[in-house]
Amino acid sequence: MENFTFYSPTYFVFGRDTENQAGSLVKRFGGSRVLIHYGGGSAVRSGLIDRVSSSLRAECLDFFCLGGVKPNPRSGLVYEGIELCRREKVDFILAVGGGSVIDSSKAIAAGTVYEGDFWDFYSGKRIEQALPVGTVLTISAAGSEGSPDSVITKEDGMFKRGASGDAIRPRFSILNPTLTQTLPPYQTAAGITDIMAHLYERYLTNTKEVEVTDRMIEALLLTMIHEGPRAVADSGNYDARANIMWAGMMAHNNSCGVGRSQDWNSHNIEHELSALYDCAHGAGLAVTMPAVFTYVMKHDVMRFAQAAVRIWGCQMDFANPEATAREGIERFRSFLCSIGMPRNFAELGAKEEDIPALVNALCRGDGRQGTISGFVTLDEEDCAKIYRLMV
Amino acid sequence: MENFTFYSPTYFVFGRDTENQAGSLVKRFGGSRVLIHYGGGSAVRSGLIDRVSSSLRAECLDFFCLGGVKPNPRSGLVYEGIELCRREKVDFILAVGGGSVIDSSKAIAAGTVYEGDFWDFYSGKRIEQALPVGTVLTISAAGSEGSPDSVITKEDGMFKRGASGDAIRPRFSILNPTLTQTLPPYQTAAGITDIMAHLYERYLTNTKEVEVTDRMIEALLLTMIHEGPRAVADSGNYDARANIMWAGMMAHNNSCGVGRSQDWNSHNIEHELSALYDCAHGAGLAVTMPAVFTYVMKHDVMRFAQAAVRIWGCQMDFANPEATAREGIERFRSFLCSIGMPRNFAELGAKEEDIPALVNALCRGDGRQGTISGFVTLDEEDCAKIYRLMV
Repeated sequence: MENFTFYSPTYFVFGRDTENQAGSLVKRFGGSRVLIHYGGGSAVRSGLIDRVSSSLRAECLDFFCLGGVKPNPRSGLVYEGIELCRREKVDFILAVGGGSVIDSSKAIAAGTVYEGDFWDFYSGKRIEQALPVGTVLTISAAGSEGSPDSVITKEDGMFKRGASGDAIRPRFSILNPTLTQTLPPYQTAAGITDIMAHLYERYLTNTKEVEVTDRMIEALLLTMIHEGPRAVADSGNYDARANIMWAGMMAHNNSCGVGRSQDWNSHNIEHELSALYDCAHGAGLAVTMPAVFTYVMKHDVMRFAQAAVRIWGCQMDFANPEATAREGIERFRSFLCSIGMPRNFAELGAKEEDIPALVNALCRGDGRQGTISGFVTLDEEDCAKIYRLMV
Repeated sequence: MENFTFYSPTYFVFGRDTENQAGSLVKRFGGSRVLIHYGGGSAVRSGLIDRVSSSLRAECLDFFCLGGVKPNPRSGLVYEGIELCRREKVDFILAVGGGSVIDSSKAIAAGTVYEGDFWDFYSGKRIEQALPVGTVLTISAAGSEGSPDSVITKEDGMFKRGASGDAIRPRFSILNPTLTQTLPPYQTAAGITDIMAHLYERYLTNTKEVEVTDRMIEALLLTMIHEGPRAVADSGNYDARANIMWAGMMAHNNSCGVGRSQDWNSHNIEHELSALYDCAHGAGLAVTMPAVFTYVMKHDVMRFAQAAVRIWGCQMDFANPEATAREGIERFRSFLCSIGMPRNFAELGAKEEDIPALVNALCRGDGRQGTISGFVTLDEEDCAKIYRLMV
C-alpha cells in the first residue's frame, strides 16, 4: 500500500424529508447570502426548489436562483454564475440537483474568489480557495456530493475536463433517496453505471497488497448488482434507492481508493463521447468500459479473474484464468444491458467515422502529448482500437 | 434503511515516517501549547516520543508530556491531565499511542473546558465542547483515531463506561503501520479481535434492507481474516499491518454502521471482564462474542447464516439454515483461537464464582435497570447464562 492522506469532512444528512434542513445547515456552515443553483424545470415542478427556498426563508437567509444547468455542464453558465455571485456578494452556494449541478456549483464557487479565468483550474491548477458549497442531491451517480472534484465542458472546443481541490468539497450534503424516485429508468441505470465505473476505475490498480480497498470496492459493486435492477424495475423502491445513494457516495469519496494507483482511462475515453454526442455519461461508460477492459485485460489477468470470481460469482478456471477474466467482463456487459444501457456505438448514437476526431480530442486536446495513462498507458493507436471495439 | 447523519472530518495521514508531520499538523489545526499524552515506556524507548517532540520543536510549539496511560484507562490520570492542561493553558492534546491513550486524551480534552466533573460525560451527558485532539496511532484496534467515542474506567467502583461527541473526533490522525510492527503477537491478535468486534456489533442489526452496509462490514471482516494471521505470524509484514490499520479505522468511523440499529451487547458484557480482571479488551471479546452469538442466534438465524456464507465461506445448508449459522460462529471461534486468543474463562483468567458480581455490575451498575439492550434485550438471567457459556 502506498502512503496517502484522506480527508472527507462533508456532513451528510441522509433520509426522508431531509431537504427541509437546508436552511439550518447553510446557517450552521456560515452562509447568509445564498445562490441556489439547479438544472431543468423538474426541480421546480416537483416543488423541491420551493421546499428548499422555504427552509432558507425560515432562517432569514437571502438567496438568489440560477437554473439551467444541463447534463455535461458548460462553461458559459459558470461564467454567468460567477458574475451573479460577485454582483450579489453571495457567500454560499447551494447545489440542488445531480452531479452536473454540483460540478457547476463547485466551478462557480472556485471562480468567484479567483482573479483569473476559472478554466485555469480545469487545465491543471489546483483549487485552493472557494466559496462554501452545500448540496441537495437528486441523482445517485457522480459522487460529487462527497468528492473534491468537478467536471465541466468548455464550449469553445467542447473539451470536457476535471478540476479538484479540498476547498470544493461540499460542507454538507443532503441525501434523500425519495428525491431520486422520480428519475426515469434510463437515467437511474446511467447513474448506476457511473457509480460502478467509479469503483472499477479504482479497482484497476498496479499497486500490490491492497486487500482492504479491493474488498471495499467489491462490496460496493455487489451492492450495485443487487440493488441496481431493483431500482430500475421499480422506481419507487425506497430501500434500493437508499442503498444505491450511500454506495454512490462511498464509491467516490475515495475511502476505497486510498493508497493505490487508479485507472480513469475509461472516464477519459468516455468524456470525448459525451462531449461530442451529449449522451448520458453513464450510458457512454456502459459502452466504453467493456471495450477498455477487454483491451487491457492481459496487463493483469489475475486482477480481472479476481473481479470475475469475487464480484460476478464466476467459478475460477484454474487451468485458464484468462477465460475467467473474460467471463467476468462479459457478465458485466450483460448486466449493463439488462438494466437498459447501450452496448455499442449505434445504440449510443455515436459514429464510427468520428473515431479519428475522438482520438485526436482525447490524446491531443488541452495539452495532452499523444497518450493517456492509468492502469495502462494508451497511445492514439490503442485508443482508436478501443473505440473500434465499441462499434 | 433508517435516516442518519454521518460526519467524519478527521484528516488522516497514512504511511511510513508520517509521525514526523505531527508538528506541522498540530500547527495547521491551531495548536500552540500541546500536551503529549502517552502510555508506557515503549513509546519513549522506541524513540517515537523523541521524533514527535522534535517535529513540535521544529514548528516552535510549546509542549508538556504526560505518560502513564494504562490499558483500560483510568479516571485518575484524566483528572491529573485536566489539571495540567488548565494550569499550563494547553490548547491542543496530542495522543501518542493506542485506543487507551486516545480515549484518555479525549476525556482530558472534554474535561478541561467543562466546569463540572468530566465523569458526567461518561454517565450519559453528550460532549459538546473539547480541546482539539490529534493522534499518532501505535495499535490497530479501538478505532478511536476516527471515532467520536471514548471509554474510561472509573476507579471508584471500577465502572467502565463510554462517552461520545463530535467535539472529541480527532482533528488529524497519523497512521504509520510500521509503528505497530513492534507489538507482540498477543496484542496484535487482541487488536484484530477488537476490530472484528466493532464490525460484528454493527452487523447484528434489526434493520431490514441494509445491503450496502452489510456488504461493507463483510468486506472489512474478510480483510481481517486474510491479513490478521499474516500480521500475527510475521510482525514485520508491513502490508498486512497497513491493511489492518485502514480496516480498523473504517470499522469504527461508522461509515459501515449508518442507517441501521447496532448491537454492542458483546462490548458491554466484555467491559465487566476487563474492568474486573484487567485483561486485554480484545481477549475478553474473543471469549465473549461466540457465547453471545450462540445465545442470541435464534433471534435471526438467517442473519447468522448470511455471515457464515459470506464471511466464513460456509456452504449454505438450505434444509437447515441453523446448522449453517452455527458453523459460522464455530469458524469465528476457531479463527480467534488460531491467532492466539483465549477461548474460555480459564484461559482469560476469569472465575465462574464471579459471575453474580459481573452480572450485577453489568445490569445494575451506573444507573442501569436490570437489562442491557442491543440486537436482543438481555436481562440478568440471560447475562448470567451467557457468562456461563464462556466457562
